[in-house]
Amino acid sequence: MTHQPLAALSRDDLAALLQEQTTAYDDLKTRGLKLDLTRGKPSAAQLDLSDELLNLPNGFTDGSGTDVRNYGGLTGLTELREMFADLLWVEPEQVIAGGNSSLTMMRDCLIYMLLFGARDSDRAWSKEGTIKFICPVPGYDRHFTLLESLGIEMITVPMNDDGPDAEAVARLVKDDRSIKGMWVVPTYANPAGSVCSQEVAARLASMETAAHDFKIFWDNAYALHHLTEEEAKSADILTLASAAGHPDRPIMFASTSKITFAGAGVAFLAASVNNVAWYLGHLGNGSIGPDKVNHLRHVQFFGSAQGVRDHMAKHREIIAPKFAEVDRVFSERLGGYDVATWNKPAGGYFVNLDVVPGTAARVIALAKDAGVALTQAGSSFPHGQDPHDQNIRIAPTMPPLEEVTAAIDAVATCILLAAAEQATASAQG
Amino acid sequence: MTHQPLAALSRDDLAALLQEQTTAYDDLKTRGLKLDLTRGKPSAAQLDLSDELLNLPNGFTDGSGTDVRNYGGLTGLTELREMFADLLWVEPEQVIAGGNSSLTMMRDCLIYMLLFGARDSDRAWSKEGTIKFICPVPGYDRHFTLLESLGIEMITVPMNDDGPDAEAVARLVKDDRSIKGMWVVPTYANPAGSVCSQEVAARLASMETAAHDFKIFWDNAYALHHLTEEEAKSADILTLASAAGHPDRPIMFASTSKITFAGAGVAFLAASVNNVAWYLGHLGNGSIGPDKVNHLRHVQFFGSAQGVRDHMAKHREIIAPKFAEVDRVFSERLGGYDVATWNKPAGGYFVNLDVVPGTAARVIALAKDAGVALTQAGSSFPHGQDPHDQNIRIAPTMPPLEEVTAAIDAVATCILLAAAEQATASAQG
Repeated sequence: MTHQPLAALSRDDLAALLQEQTTAYDDLKTRGLKLDLTRGKPSAAQLDLSDELLNLPNGFTDGSGTDVRNYGGLTGLTELREMFADLLWVEPEQVIAGGNSSLTMMRDCLIYMLLFGARDSDRAWSKEGTIKFICPVPGYDRHFTLLESLGIEMITVPMNDDGPDAEAVARLVKDDRSIKGMWVVPTYANPAGSVCSQEVAARLASMETAAHDFKIFWDNAYALHHLTEEEAKSADILTLASAAGHPDRPIMFASTSKITFAGAGVAFLAASVNNVAWYLGHLGNGSIGPDKVNHLRHVQFFGSAQGVRDHMAKHREIIAPKFAEVDRVFSERLGGYDVATWNKPAGGYFVNLDVVPGTAARVIALAKDAGVALTQAGSSFPHGQDPHDQNIRIAPTMPPLEEVTAAIDAVATCILLAAAEQATASAQG
Repeated sequence: MTHQPLAALSRDDLAALLQEQTTAYDDLKTRGLKLDLTRGKPSAAQLDLSDELLNLPNGFTDGSGTDVRNYGGLTGLTELREMFADLLWVEPEQVIAGGNSSLTMMRDCLIYMLLFGARDSDRAWSKEGTIKFICPVPGYDRHFTLLESLGIEMITVPMNDDGPDAEAVARLVKDDRSIKGMWVVPTYANPAGSVCSQEVAARLASMETAAHDFKIFWDNAYALHHLTEEEAKSADILTLASAAGHPDRPIMFASTSKITFAGAGVAFLAASVNNVAWYLGHLGNGSIGPDKVNHLRHVQFFGSAQGVRDHMAKHREIIAPKFAEVDRVFSERLGGYDVATWNKPAGGYFVNLDVVPGTAARVIALAKDAGVALTQAGSSFPHGQDPHDQNIRIAPTMPPLEEVTAAIDAVATCILLAAAEQATASAQG
């Protein structure tokens, strides 16, 4: 069903729509919904796919005969590093297998840079005065709160369909020595779903930067998280940077949090061998080594890199229908009104929704009052400040399919109501 | 067998002893030993005690019904916090269950204090110029390298039989605002084996400090690691500090690294509720929560606090004979010569050995050449600088009993040889 654009409605038709959606919304509120689309969490059915982990490992020695129960082994289990080197298109010696959180690895890298400097820095970043990072928007809220907590200023650039706006980035970093780094979620970005092209990655890898120790935090959280059979291959940032003469510019992060157990997976860092040595040097002062038993558990569970890919196909079977449902309900309810745009991501965990400028916070508030939790307004922007108050991140993976249907239908009502309210106010104003 | 004090030997007797030990040492070298007394690691037999963990957990929900496989739960599993609150004599809301390393929790606390300040600080410690910590010696090398890596200066005080020299500490902290904290290993200290008395703890908790945000890093790594049936109870530092009006002064650390699996255990932080909130506030910016599956695994494995105590008794059965063997061999080989003193610890992981001043590095070098690895000379002192070159830390838990016998016998030969060499040189000098 295609509707008329809201802006083209007559005064009477607009009044009728407002009345209709108000009634629909009031009805919604009486239904006592309790639905949650806030976080990109795997569902119970997805977690069930890895329950064999609960009975692993068999034995307690790795391929070299080392007892994984004891201390040590800062780099992580060799077999696991090899497996994920294959999956991330890097060399095993460029990969470290760590604890359960790639976010913690990112934090540690930032802290080491602040306290000691990167390996190619002249001094600790904390001794340099103001430090800035470039943040493509919309982006991942946790990246922004991490920078904010560390007192690092944020400069936004647009996130395009082929990755960050590389020309905008290149212009910014060319003359400003205080810009020390940038975030990139290269594959199925959070929340935009875009995939960074080889060309954009090459530009970021080769661009001239005033800060000679500029870093790309390449958070490849969704490298393997395809929603279609056409699997995007991440740009090979380490090779590109190395070829461009900046081997130490990128640091890649990944994890099995959305592959096995979200809270009990394994995180990875991949970088130049020099960056790896730099990271381990600092890590070693405050670590007894990662949980190697959990590493062995994962090695045995997957069996091989192909085992990981096969496992991801099972995730796709569970979550792809939820993403399709978001699109179906939004299309049916909103198609033609011209009050929202949303993407159909080919991977990752989010649908990126833009509503009528100035109504995102209102939509989220309406949804909340009707029992549907959405991510806080502005959360995909630094300091939670969405300049146009129009972006909403939808995370449909966690609830069962029927709840996704109900929640998206409710959100559609809120979008229409907020848009009709605004149009009415502006017609009267 | 009791020998004559070396210093009392005639020139001929000394020459005979030197000859005898040189022969013994040469003989040692031909035996191709490969023994290691360097690190306080549990032995394979100790790790075997916890192998049931490899098949746990059963199910994946905690007592409140939360799915432990998913993200979240920054404080750790309630049941595990309650269990270790009981064991550490604190309240559950004062305890956080974290990842696999208490050393990492210590590092994180120091980093938060440097970057942001403690909860009762006026500013970030990194903004205060020189920062100093008091280090009782001999002490734990990892504490010292951690401070060194962070640029924190170290002031040593003696470690006595009842804990750190509290009067020396109190004198230092009274007027020097740059002294921001101190280390204490209160129970079966590494390596001295001493237990901090309630009186010393009370003095440290109540003493006047020029820095109003002074912190005691109370590393209770061996709280439950008794070697005799007489179990030392750790001084109750949180209550003492609270009673003295300094509730936020101590931060306690502990772990199951030497209870279950050294590399795959659970670490704990315990402190005032305000300090806990401070820690979680910073932790939350860079963490997705701890590995709750491993928490559940430990809850099910132990069953109760008493289950932990019972489990520790099994460790004691395995390692107490090794400590007894160190004492037996040293007594037999060295008794009466007056060339070494060593303690008979009632718990913990180390024997603290003092040899003739000026010979510790020589003993360690001799042992190394004979195939017996000892902890690096000076490692129990900041910057590896033992002012009298006399301290050696012996870690007898890891090797099987027969290897402990062979290694300690070899070390005794090295001690005697080095002492005889020095006495001969000094008699000739």
